[in-house]
Amino acid sequence: MPARQRMQSTLPAQQVSTNSRNRRFAMEAEFIAWLQERIPPHRYLRLGPGDDAALVSQPGSNTIVTVDMISEGVDFDLRTTAPARVGRKALAVNLSDIAAMAARPTAAVVALSLPKANALPLAKRLYEGLLPLAEQFDTPIAGGDLQTWDGPLVISITVLGQPGPRGPLLRSGARPGDAIVVTGSLGGSILGKHLDFLPRIEEAALLHEKYELHAGMDMSDGLSLDLWRMCQASGCGAAIDFDLIPVSEAARQLSDQRQDGITPLVHALGDGEDFELLLAVPWEEAQRLCQDQPLNVPVTMIGRFVEQPGLWQQSADGMRPMVPFGYEH
Amino acid sequence: MPARQRMQSTLPAQQVSTNSRNRRFAMEAEFIAWLQERIPPHRYLRLGPGDDAALVSQPGSNTIVTVDMISEGVDFDLRTTAPARVGRKALAVNLSDIAAMAARPTAAVVALSLPKANALPLAKRLYEGLLPLAEQFDTPIAGGDLQTWDGPLVISITVLGQPGPRGPLLRSGARPGDAIVVTGSLGGSILGKHLDFLPRIEEAALLHEKYELHAGMDMSDGLSLDLWRMCQASGCGAAIDFDLIPVSEAARQLSDQRQDGITPLVHALGDGEDFELLLAVPWEEAQRLCQDQPLNVPVTMIGRFVEQPGLWQQSADGMRPMVPFGYEH
Repeated sequence: MPARQRMQSTLPAQQVSTNSRNRRFAMEAEFIAWLQERIPPHRYLRLGPGDDAALVSQPGSNTIVTVDMISEGVDFDLRTTAPARVGRKALAVNLSDIAAMAARPTAAVVALSLPKANALPLAKRLYEGLLPLAEQFDTPIAGGDLQTWDGPLVISITVLGQPGPRGPLLRSGARPGDAIVVTGSLGGSILGKHLDFLPRIEEAALLHEKYELHAGMDMSDGLSLDLWRMCQASGCGAAIDFDLIPVSEAARQLSDQRQDGITPLVHALGDGEDFELLLAVPWEEAQRLCQDQPLNVPVTMIGRFVEQPGLWQQSADGMRPMVPFGYEH
Repeated sequence: MPARQRMQSTLPAQQVSTNSRNRRFAMEAEFIAWLQERIPPHRYLRLGPGDDAALVSQPGSNTIVTVDMISEGVDFDLRTTAPARVGRKALAVNLSDIAAMAARPTAAVVALSLPKANALPLAKRLYEGLLPLAEQFDTPIAGGDLQTWDGPLVISITVLGQPGPRGPLLRSGARPGDAIVVTGSLGGSILGKHLDFLPRIEEAALLHEKYELHAGMDMSDGLSLDLWRMCQASGCGAAIDFDLIPVSEAARQLSDQRQDGITPLVHALGDGEDFELLLAVPWEEAQRLCQDQPLNVPVTMIGRFVEQPGLWQQSADGMRPMVPFGYEH
């Protein structure tokens, strides 16, 4: 493997020359000082960056915890995307997982592996995107870790959260007869939403408080696959009415641009990184919810959970089996 | 940069072909199933791997949180080190940070970036080293994330903990007149201890409970640098008596092997990754502690904190300034 071969000349930290070690420590110290100036006081944060660990004091003894790691060349491309947007995304995907549990974030820690050239400016620019989102969602940055290396940028963020008064919303609670409900519109997020999406923290909290929800998750790998996962976790199946799927404008644009025969509907079924909510809602409750439209984004019923395992396409002439992943044939 | 160039042909996850996406999801599902079988029930773990996030329920509302990221070619070398030892180390460095706060771990989440070739077997072998250590220190693995890529192995672990009855032990509490106390012996960890060290969780908890400690941290970057950091955080200086430093057998071996003129003492002062405790203890209390020797490893006074900022070498004829990093001249 080329990557491994490339690292052969690199030695464990202890054997690195004094000068390069000292450069690393100086960078770390400078960065922590820079960061401490930018982290506002927060009621949950008793001890922030700079010690061996942080101290977070959140109400209640139940802690939601999630981690996501994203990497250059896999999840983003620094040649075409500003580091601030990348930093924002790294936090946003975690906040989306917190939203998936209908929880609220209480703190985050951030670990970075930075390419050696330009490491400190890159770290700062990542945080310039990350910090405003953290503030927007009332999430103090409690601490982190950073190292420099010969590899590409890797960002791993862990977010802590607290469940709402009704407890965490799991993906395993869907029951046959429940409506399949989604927020927003789906597909084509590669055109921009995969970076700039808004985690559905507020939406999930409101829905979980005001309506009876049986199950929930965020859609990171595409409607069809994530719905299949919810079915797997819940021990049931799901039948989608394709006509009801809220296809995004971006899905249409992408289909137009590419002219590859993949329709907007297939993008809505298969594209990843929508970061919208997928919910299982008792049928009558779902009617009420969709009539109320209590969010700033649409809430749409697109089918129902069924006894038969697997995914199904619901149409006028009955149910046809479909594969979990939209455009796989 | 070669690494970045190598990634140029890689596209964001959404554009990757269906087959490679499905392979990834299948791997992820297989891995989670494998992991779920190996994670024993734990009183703090309400919801483990498999949902969007985990739910940890620990006593009290104060949560210690720390994250460390380690990478192939920087912190370990998979050509010479078994993956199980690497997985163990990745958790151990985090547990050492929890020990540094005299806290106890309550849960961990693990994020992996795995080289594409052989990703799943590698992930399993990492866990085979990590899980026994987690069990030894009563730390449930609450969840994680994994991705495959063209880069080298990256492991980012976040550990949650709870402070002891006296609260967290900070690095900022050292006062002039306090004794500098260390556990164990120092230097030469590259010969093995940097992988196989035992995090000082029990030792720190016992010391913090039975003795008055003013400050504490774990030594990851070498006695002299870490002591300098404690001084910086505490607003004082420190004077070390070189004759009192507990030099490890490994430091002597390393000096013998290398024949590079770096003495065992300089290894003890400068080598990283000892993962022993560095403590500031009121002078009389330190006398009592060193007489008691309450641990299975030695506890040694090696000098005292002083008013004058910076590091000093204490000898019969007075104090001489020393640079923070042992063998830098």
